[in-house]
Amino acid sequence: METMKRTKVVDAFDASLYGTRINVKGWVRTRRGNKHINFIALNDGSTIKNIQVVVDLSKFTEAEMKPITTGACISVIGTLVESQGKGQQAEIQAESIELYGGADPDVYPLQKKGHTLEFLREIAHLRPRTNTFGAVFRIRHHLAYAIHKYFNDRGFFYLNTPLITASDCEGAGAMFQVTTLDLNNVPRTDDGAVDYSADFFGKPTSLTVSGQLEGELGAMSLGAIYTFGPTFRAENSNTPRHLAEFWMVEPEVAFNEIEENMDLAEDFLKYLIRYALDHCQDDLEFLSQMYDSELIERLKFVVENDFVRLPYTEGVKILEESGHKFEYPVYWGADLQSEHERFLVEEHFKKPVILTDYPKEIKAFYMKLNDDGKTVRAMDVLFPRIGEIIGGSQREESYEKLLSRIEELHIPMKDMWWYLDTRRFGTAPHSGFGLGFERLVLFVTGMTNIRDVIPFPRTPKNAEF
Amino acid sequence: METMKRTKVVDAFDASLYGTRINVKGWVRTRRGNKHINFIALNDGSTIKNIQVVVDLSKFTEAEMKPITTGACISVIGTLVESQGKGQQAEIQAESIELYGGADPDVYPLQKKGHTLEFLREIAHLRPRTNTFGAVFRIRHHLAYAIHKYFNDRGFFYLNTPLITASDCEGAGAMFQVTTLDLNNVPRTDDGAVDYSADFFGKPTSLTVSGQLEGELGAMSLGAIYTFGPTFRAENSNTPRHLAEFWMVEPEVAFNEIEENMDLAEDFLKYLIRYALDHCQDDLEFLSQMYDSELIERLKFVVENDFVRLPYTEGVKILEESGHKFEYPVYWGADLQSEHERFLVEEHFKKPVILTDYPKEIKAFYMKLNDDGKTVRAMDVLFPRIGEIIGGSQREESYEKLLSRIEELHIPMKDMWWYLDTRRFGTAPHSGFGLGFERLVLFVTGMTNIRDVIPFPRTPKNAEF
Repeated sequence: METMKRTKVVDAFDASLYGTRINVKGWVRTRRGNKHINFIALNDGSTIKNIQVVVDLSKFTEAEMKPITTGACISVIGTLVESQGKGQQAEIQAESIELYGGADPDVYPLQKKGHTLEFLREIAHLRPRTNTFGAVFRIRHHLAYAIHKYFNDRGFFYLNTPLITASDCEGAGAMFQVTTLDLNNVPRTDDGAVDYSADFFGKPTSLTVSGQLEGELGAMSLGAIYTFGPTFRAENSNTPRHLAEFWMVEPEVAFNEIEENMDLAEDFLKYLIRYALDHCQDDLEFLSQMYDSELIERLKFVVENDFVRLPYTEGVKILEESGHKFEYPVYWGADLQSEHERFLVEEHFKKPVILTDYPKEIKAFYMKLNDDGKTVRAMDVLFPRIGEIIGGSQREESYEKLLSRIEELHIPMKDMWWYLDTRRFGTAPHSGFGLGFERLVLFVTGMTNIRDVIPFPRTPKNAEF
Repeated sequence: METMKRTKVVDAFDASLYGTRINVKGWVRTRRGNKHINFIALNDGSTIKNIQVVVDLSKFTEAEMKPITTGACISVIGTLVESQGKGQQAEIQAESIELYGGADPDVYPLQKKGHTLEFLREIAHLRPRTNTFGAVFRIRHHLAYAIHKYFNDRGFFYLNTPLITASDCEGAGAMFQVTTLDLNNVPRTDDGAVDYSADFFGKPTSLTVSGQLEGELGAMSLGAIYTFGPTFRAENSNTPRHLAEFWMVEPEVAFNEIEENMDLAEDFLKYLIRYALDHCQDDLEFLSQMYDSELIERLKFVVENDFVRLPYTEGVKILEESGHKFEYPVYWGADLQSEHERFLVEEHFKKPVILTDYPKEIKAFYMKLNDDGKTVRAMDVLFPRIGEIIGGSQREESYEKLLSRIEELHIPMKDMWWYLDTRRFGTAPHSGFGLGFERLVLFVTGMTNIRDVIPFPRTPKNAEF
């Protein structure tokens, strides 16, 4: 076949190309037709749309056509024309077809018929070839890019905080141990303990559960930073909302107090959702049709409305007075469950809610204590369907108050001296928050299981691919 | 003090603001002067430039001024005026100053005097407050952003490949084990082996050394993808070039052959370096003055010249005939050392070199075999000072050839079946490469130790902060 510059399918719907010869390459989604003419729906991953290839069978041999089945990869040269068929904007009248690789219909798992999301999880190595996962992962890309663009345009610096950490005090959950010791033959010290001096880092190390503490170091020097990277939880949670490995976004800003932190979180979320609406229209429409007819309406609603801002104490009061039967009891001091958060958002306010000023006992040690002595300047952003999508706070900037909180909680000073140094030397008010990236992708795609919005999910007993 | 909107230092050099009252916040770099007037150099991390704060001592008490020492954090309100002083573009005539936090001169480690990079590594939690590391980490940010922008603008999708992997065949180096087993009491099976059924994932798992294999799955469905995330090597390499945890960029493109892969690598590197020249001028000038007077010239040279493209066989011939004494012997079949790579780039061609078609024995199993049966379509991009900055290849797309290579090398099929499926079902030519992000940052900043271009380096026996 002659060599031509390849045109991506996403670019082949450009009416200014009609009448020209182009070369498209991709995977066959379907082939149908009669004994005179065949129609191949070809997709190359650049868009959810397939380009239709029209094949006049009098110009091709049976041997040429036989391997062109669902899943096969081909290169097609032909003339791009406006399509006569319903719902097709453009089609290619095939002149020559080259087969790159077939896909034996007897064994290729992705045949025409619909598959359950459960089945597709078992073949996560092939599921990006489906419409659903093509759409989800393209949207995931656009959201990730929007995150970088948002922060870059506003003078934040991307800070790569470490994944391997010797600190076990981040407190956000159970951790995975990282080691080069031979588990068949763990070295021992004279008194029988594990001899970590023989380990790679000379001490026990784990995978981080948050980059925040290092992020604060960045904010207290570069002014405004954000992290965006993998974080880990070794919790045995087999739910549609939990992953052992997931991506987190953590901005941190010197001189921001809690109000500015809320402004940032609300503006940031609205920007990201608006970006998806603007850049992922075809994919969102597909997901809306297939899974969730209210999806696009829900996204627009979040973009167009102010978030409610409410102290925890008032939120608890609303829940107590609601008369609603909750599975978990609600009272001042309780850590709110997803059912409580969703009640406030979906039933009571019918808007995203930022809940603030939580009891200090249920929040992390580094949050700034309010003057009441019992609540801290925390803020959780609660979304419909998702519950908590962002958790953040103004940080305690007083060296003395932070130190006494660390001592109260018996957090080992070996893990804390460097963090305390930000308060010893040139401390200042500062604030930040964490956004679970997969929670955002769940919300924007309308998918309901977090395993379906990350390419290769890691969950208890599952580290395939 | 009155509440005003804060102006970042980077925005305070805007002549259109002269004559207006502004509020800047930041950390004191130096304070000098006489008994009538003081000059505070203030920095907030937004730029390498300090803004000069002019303090008329008749308006402030001694008690107010005393804690304003190097490292202290203050908020200043005053009028922005054009500076009369040499080398200062703008200064603020202080009206009021609020102290956020002092920095006791007896213990604050970053006093005026210069510090060695070695010393600053020991206080990595504070070093971003220095000019050098402020510049390095701002440049790092801009390069990271440029990577996302380059790929996004060209229709690549960002694919988050997994960090925790059950596969140990990636072959790029020694791996860290990830486990939730209790090392004090490792569970055993009846025959005395480690009982991994009790581990979090039910089998041994490690930290990935490359996202490429999963990246190929992405390319063979979404068309063009890139990864950009942390990767790990558990090698006991205490050198200025190696980290145990580092960030890697790995694009992978369906239908690209080796020539297009080289075009992409060259265009990509030039784009990134040009982006840094355009967006990091102040920081590059500072680093150039302080560490490496040829830095900017070297960057421009790379942007402006075509890279040499040369088969490995010819490269070896040049080295053999050079008459140069190398520490490691050079012969056809040898894995080239940094000294060889740098000789070709710095001495012989005086240009970046892309070396291609390496002997198959020294390259990974997945590279496409050439018709000669003994070389593969590998490509390494060699840079001055750095040596290999990019390694890539066209991938073997033939199921049979790939399978026989996997069998030849006794790679376990349990790790390979899903990778082989891309060749079983709709295979196609495809290519990609890996860029070690810290190597790029080293090159662009002119720094010489890789520990100085990542905020919190992980190396043997070192996982601090």
